[in-house]
Amino acid sequence: MYRKTFDGMNCSIARSLDQVGEWWSLLIVREAMLGTTRFDDFQSRLGIARNVLTSRLNSLIENGVLERVVAEGSEKRCAYVLTPKGKALYPVLVALMQWGDQWLGHEAPIKLVEHSTGLPIEPVGPRVGERVLALHEVRAVPGPGATEKTLESIEKRNRAILGEG
Amino acid sequence: MYRKTFDGMNCSIARSLDQVGEWWSLLIVREAMLGTTRFDDFQSRLGIARNVLTSRLNSLIENGVLERVVAEGSEKRCAYVLTPKGKALYPVLVALMQWGDQWLGHEAPIKLVEHSTGLPIEPVGPRVGERVLALHEVRAVPGPGATEKTLESIEKRNRAILGEG
Repeated sequence: MYRKTFDGMNCSIARSLDQVGEWWSLLIVREAMLGTTRFDDFQSRLGIARNVLTSRLNSLIENGVLERVVAEGSEKRCAYVLTPKGKALYPVLVALMQWGDQWLGHEAPIKLVEHSTGLPIEPVGPRVGERVLALHEVRAVPGPGATEKTLESIEKRNRAILGEG
Repeated sequence: MYRKTFDGMNCSIARSLDQVGEWWSLLIVREAMLGTTRFDDFQSRLGIARNVLTSRLNSLIENGVLERVVAEGSEKRCAYVLTPKGKALYPVLVALMQWGDQWLGHEAPIKLVEHSTGLPIEPVGPRVGERVLALHEVRAVPGPGATEKTLESIEKRNRAILGEG
């Protein structure tokens, strides 16, 4: 059923969710970004069933988000580490974290600062220069991969969000 | 099972995914950001089963991401629109879109520009000033909501990612 979306929509968000949008997948990526590498550690820290964890790890490996390597100091054990493609999901997770901190009514458990300076990270979001732009301050335009359907979506989007006739 | 994570981890990412991390939820939010408001339009554009769509819409409404309003021009029809909390998910979706454009081997269907100037949106991500910082350039520090477990996670994270003894 999901593939229908993927094929029909020609949308980078749908395609991204196709690779990391399953329940648990982004939590596994988050765990990897917290330094977890071993199957048993993912399992106990997430409280996830072993068969589900195996299936999610395998699909993240297939999609090139994680890779399985021999663990340091033990040739018998394997470790799961983020690939460059996996590390590139960091902005998605920071955006989710900031949204949670702002909207879910709890105090932030973790703050992020620049390692070299200690300066706090600014709000993540689409920007031109200093300010993060809101949904209605951004216009969609066709990219090189646009299809007829994309053009329709873009027109509908700009009409609805920007209030254009 | 999932609640285990939520309770044990005290993590804004887990809590955010608890509200919008189900399969379909972020695609529904994306549709709403493309201007879709009617049940039948969500249904046909996403190719999602009606019962699943109903369940996802209800949980997005319960979580304050969408609200159900009377459709303009028809008192009998209802429309689903984003709340301010829902619109605040825009950075998450833009981050997923940029990741897809960069890593999924297709040409970008849509480009985003600032509405008022036409200038292209910059890469979304954690930054201090001009440059988007990578995972290993960011340090985690305790926030006001940190627990003992958070402190352990932070230490482990900085040791693993920043290579600190």
